[in-house]
Amino acid sequence: MIPASLCKKAGMIMTQGLQSIAFEQSPYVVSSASVVGKKEGEGPLGKMFDMVETENLFGEDSWEAAESTMQKEACLLAMGKAHLHKEDVRFLFGGDLLRQGIATSLGVMEFGIPMFGLFGACSTSGEALALASMSVAAGYGDYMLAVTSSHFGSAEKEFRFPLSYANQRPLSAQWTVTGSGAFLVGRKRSHVRITGITVGKIVDFGLKDSQNMGACMAPAAADTIETNLKDFGREPDDYSRIITGDLGYVGQSILFDLMRGKEIDIKKNHIDCGMMIFDQNKQDTHAGGSGCGCAASVLSSYILPKLERGEWKKVLFVPTGALMSTVSFNEGASVPGIAHGIVLEHC
Amino acid sequence: MIPASLCKKAGMIMTQGLQSIAFEQSPYVVSSASVVGKKEGEGPLGKMFDMVETENLFGEDSWEAAESTMQKEACLLAMGKAHLHKEDVRFLFGGDLLRQGIATSLGVMEFGIPMFGLFGACSTSGEALALASMSVAAGYGDYMLAVTSSHFGSAEKEFRFPLSYANQRPLSAQWTVTGSGAFLVGRKRSHVRITGITVGKIVDFGLKDSQNMGACMAPAAADTIETNLKDFGREPDDYSRIITGDLGYVGQSILFDLMRGKEIDIKKNHIDCGMMIFDQNKQDTHAGGSGCGCAASVLSSYILPKLERGEWKKVLFVPTGALMSTVSFNEGASVPGIAHGIVLEHC
Repeated sequence: MIPASLCKKAGMIMTQGLQSIAFEQSPYVVSSASVVGKKEGEGPLGKMFDMVETENLFGEDSWEAAESTMQKEACLLAMGKAHLHKEDVRFLFGGDLLRQGIATSLGVMEFGIPMFGLFGACSTSGEALALASMSVAAGYGDYMLAVTSSHFGSAEKEFRFPLSYANQRPLSAQWTVTGSGAFLVGRKRSHVRITGITVGKIVDFGLKDSQNMGACMAPAAADTIETNLKDFGREPDDYSRIITGDLGYVGQSILFDLMRGKEIDIKKNHIDCGMMIFDQNKQDTHAGGSGCGCAASVLSSYILPKLERGEWKKVLFVPTGALMSTVSFNEGASVPGIAHGIVLEHC
Repeated sequence: MIPASLCKKAGMIMTQGLQSIAFEQSPYVVSSASVVGKKEGEGPLGKMFDMVETENLFGEDSWEAAESTMQKEACLLAMGKAHLHKEDVRFLFGGDLLRQGIATSLGVMEFGIPMFGLFGACSTSGEALALASMSVAAGYGDYMLAVTSSHFGSAEKEFRFPLSYANQRPLSAQWTVTGSGAFLVGRKRSHVRITGITVGKIVDFGLKDSQNMGACMAPAAADTIETNLKDFGREPDDYSRIITGDLGYVGQSILFDLMRGKEIDIKKNHIDCGMMIFDQNKQDTHAGGSGCGCAASVLSSYILPKLERGEWKKVLFVPTGALMSTVSFNEGASVPGIAHGIVLEHC
């Protein structure tokens, strides 16, 4: 436990436990933007995204370059909404699902913003928001940019088969969202603050099915949600919503089981970005959406506006990631999960 | 520019420029550890590493699992040297070169330390040390763990060919170091402090040769060194050494050319971890060592002891990364670089 005097000095207070930080001077989500592909634009949240590209190559020659372009557009839109320029942003925290994070590196390169490349699988938007808010709260700069993306075409190629192979997908499989979300976190007042974070630890239940990511990630989500409630001394009802990233239908049902085992009932106010972004019946997306861009684009387009309007007062945003690669999968390693918790409040 | 009042409050001062932070209450490198493979143990620094494994699988079944084991061992040794337990570490910042960072995820998983997964190619040790020191200086915790690794076997498989293919390597190619370095950064007094950082931005000179990483990374190193000197108002001579990560022989010569163009002479006090870890003549390593584990293991085994003894007073440690994947390379994308600067001082 950190001595309170020390924490006060740095403009923050610590909660009990090792995983959480409660900011005394909470940073604001100054602005955000979402950029998505055609299918996402046709889904239930279609009208809420800032930019829907009807052509999934985004004018580029490859899926990877398309993903880079999405990140760039999302960052430009977020900065534009806040009337800020790239020179105003002190650090950029970004990541994606591709090997060696090339969608991010090649996407944000031209901004020339000092950057930290991240990898947390589909939890990366939470990781980026955690580090951005820690940096702003510590006084390291007025504005930080957090950005993540995923692309159905590049992700299928990276993790499964090239699209032209037209492989069959089991019903537990999720559909990688083509999308990016960018967030400017800073000191400038807005109507949403990041008041706390719960940094995830890796949780491994020994599952090995890479076509059932929801099941692999649910234990990490349960761990982070339980820890957050304990660290902040809250009940599930204290949150207007507890929002996981992309557990999907299979993962949600496992999460509920796990939480029941902990005697915590989150059924009433739990929603999942992966279950919201597509219409399961009409869009043939099986267990729901997934990917670094899923939680990020839903946070920007759907969650933040509700917080801004005060329709929701306080939410716990918990993007979840499955930590695996084709190599670890082929070598028979299990697929552990990680989930980071971000407390967002209307103000 | 950040108002000084704000920065003072958070226990830090800011320097001019957007990339650097000078810590007022500088965190200490409390302890560190290095774990390397057989070839590294036979090199010029062989006797300085904490652990040299004579069998490169480290008792595991795959190169990837071997790399995970190295990270775990390095973390355990670093914590052991400081007489600390995993529960004492608030956050872990770690990364490696493999797709989706599995060496790190599967390596540090069992510690259960809340973690941030990073990707900065071979610059990741700098990225991890930057975030760890930012977190300690801000008061987010007493101890942070920064760890990175690379493994010749897993890296060849990831980026080039499986070892059994026995491919020919051009003379500009570097030899990926089998090694890991772990660093405990914290408030507990030691004889080395991290007094400042310069966060790198991505620099692209349009080079596309993935077998000449030194050339791809040299522009980023030049940019970060120049920025660091400017931001901190220093001359090259103010540093006992300016130490790049793994530019190797080719990269060093390009770095000198670039610095001459900036009218900065670093020839007298520049050294490169990739040039030190192997004996170029006897070990057939062509342009030198490379990899996330190169700079990290040399920092722990060679650089930190010199700082501890006061033999060196102040060094600028600049690990460099080449941002590419086999996919981006095959698609004809350039290989941009990034380099993070860490100022280490004897105290």
